[in-house]
Amino acid sequence: MNDRPKALLFDVQGTATDFHSTVVAAAAATLGRRYPGRDWSAFVNDWRAAYFRGTAAVGDRWVGVDSIYRGALDELLTERGMDLPAQARAELNSAWKHLDPWPDAVPGLTRLRRRYTLATLSNADVDAVVSITRHCDFPWHAVFTAEMAGAHKPDPRTYRMAAHYLGAQPGEIMMVASHKYDIRAAAALGFRTAFVARPLEFGDPALADTAFSDEFDINATDFEDLADQLGC
Amino acid sequence: MNDRPKALLFDVQGTATDFHSTVVAAAAATLGRRYPGRDWSAFVNDWRAAYFRGTAAVGDRWVGVDSIYRGALDELLTERGMDLPAQARAELNSAWKHLDPWPDAVPGLTRLRRRYTLATLSNADVDAVVSITRHCDFPWHAVFTAEMAGAHKPDPRTYRMAAHYLGAQPGEIMMVASHKYDIRAAAALGFRTAFVARPLEFGDPALADTAFSDEFDINATDFEDLADQLGC
Repeated sequence: MNDRPKALLFDVQGTATDFHSTVVAAAAATLGRRYPGRDWSAFVNDWRAAYFRGTAAVGDRWVGVDSIYRGALDELLTERGMDLPAQARAELNSAWKHLDPWPDAVPGLTRLRRRYTLATLSNADVDAVVSITRHCDFPWHAVFTAEMAGAHKPDPRTYRMAAHYLGAQPGEIMMVASHKYDIRAAAALGFRTAFVARPLEFGDPALADTAFSDEFDINATDFEDLADQLGC
Repeated sequence: MNDRPKALLFDVQGTATDFHSTVVAAAAATLGRRYPGRDWSAFVNDWRAAYFRGTAAVGDRWVGVDSIYRGALDELLTERGMDLPAQARAELNSAWKHLDPWPDAVPGLTRLRRRYTLATLSNADVDAVVSITRHCDFPWHAVFTAEMAGAHKPDPRTYRMAAHYLGAQPGEIMMVASHKYDIRAAAALGFRTAFVARPLEFGDPALADTAFSDEFDINATDFEDLADQLGC
């Protein structure tokens, strides 16, 4: 790229962090003794899918993602005939606030920080992204989340809030995500796009869409590759 | 302190950054050739004082700090019979987005980051605090500013916005500032307080209130001393 962006916006859950391993481990630890032999990978993927339906369903109301995850967990436990005390449910739900980073994330971001303004643009609540930032030691300059716009991605208000807060035009900002719906929504508003393939996002590589596409400005295998391609 | 806070909120302009040296240098560079022999230190202090009156005067309307600084600059230039083309005025005004850090700020924050969640709570606009964060390489986890609350400090909405976004109670958060009105407003809402003396904030040490006081939980000479007192 000859004409580089000024700022990069990062999706967090799935793109910068490995939620699947983190939440599978939490589910196995919390529920595994009561319900041995269950497929916790499938459980977490169903939970994540219910969360996605939840964020899409809230419409114009603002609903914090923490409560969407919790509602989805409660439904899932009922469906599967599993019981869990309230305190343990709250602890399991909070696993989404303590996600581990992909191994390339901090090294890649550390290289990118020298040259670009880095920020998050996550659907997770602000306190969750701050918690994850501290847990992972992510070196971005700022945290922006859907909560600050009162609307979830892919609602245009989220991307426009971030551009306003960065004091930059959409064309000066690159949205980085492993989810194509996210970067396509940003592209429709004039943002640049970087697709990062995360084959293990849902555990089984067959479940992740990792196909590179010319529709994106950059296709990267991880954050180190992104740093390479952005000249860092 | 036996019972330590979970998170620290930092004022930026004056507390973490040396706006006086930075903006005096910009004013001297921009205006000094046209108007030699003026007292640029006094000019910047009058500009800052006019900004303070401006943030207090806007009441319940939200007005970005960038435009308050610009309005104050325009008034000041008129009062002093000085002329400056629009482009140069915009450049001089943008000096507030490129403030240099106090020498202890990054070393102190780097030590504090290992143990505490760190964020800003500034009256400067988000884009200015992001710009300053990048310029100074400040290692906080998140940027919160008055703009996100639609109200300037010492309005309670600003402190409450930060507590909500941190997912913490006021008593778990320490507000750090060199301005007593700021930490007194936070204390009235139940926040803990750290006063940091910045004798050179306005150039002449006679102009700064650096007196320690028992009303604050911590009185510190700089961010390294703050890190010492907070066990880092």
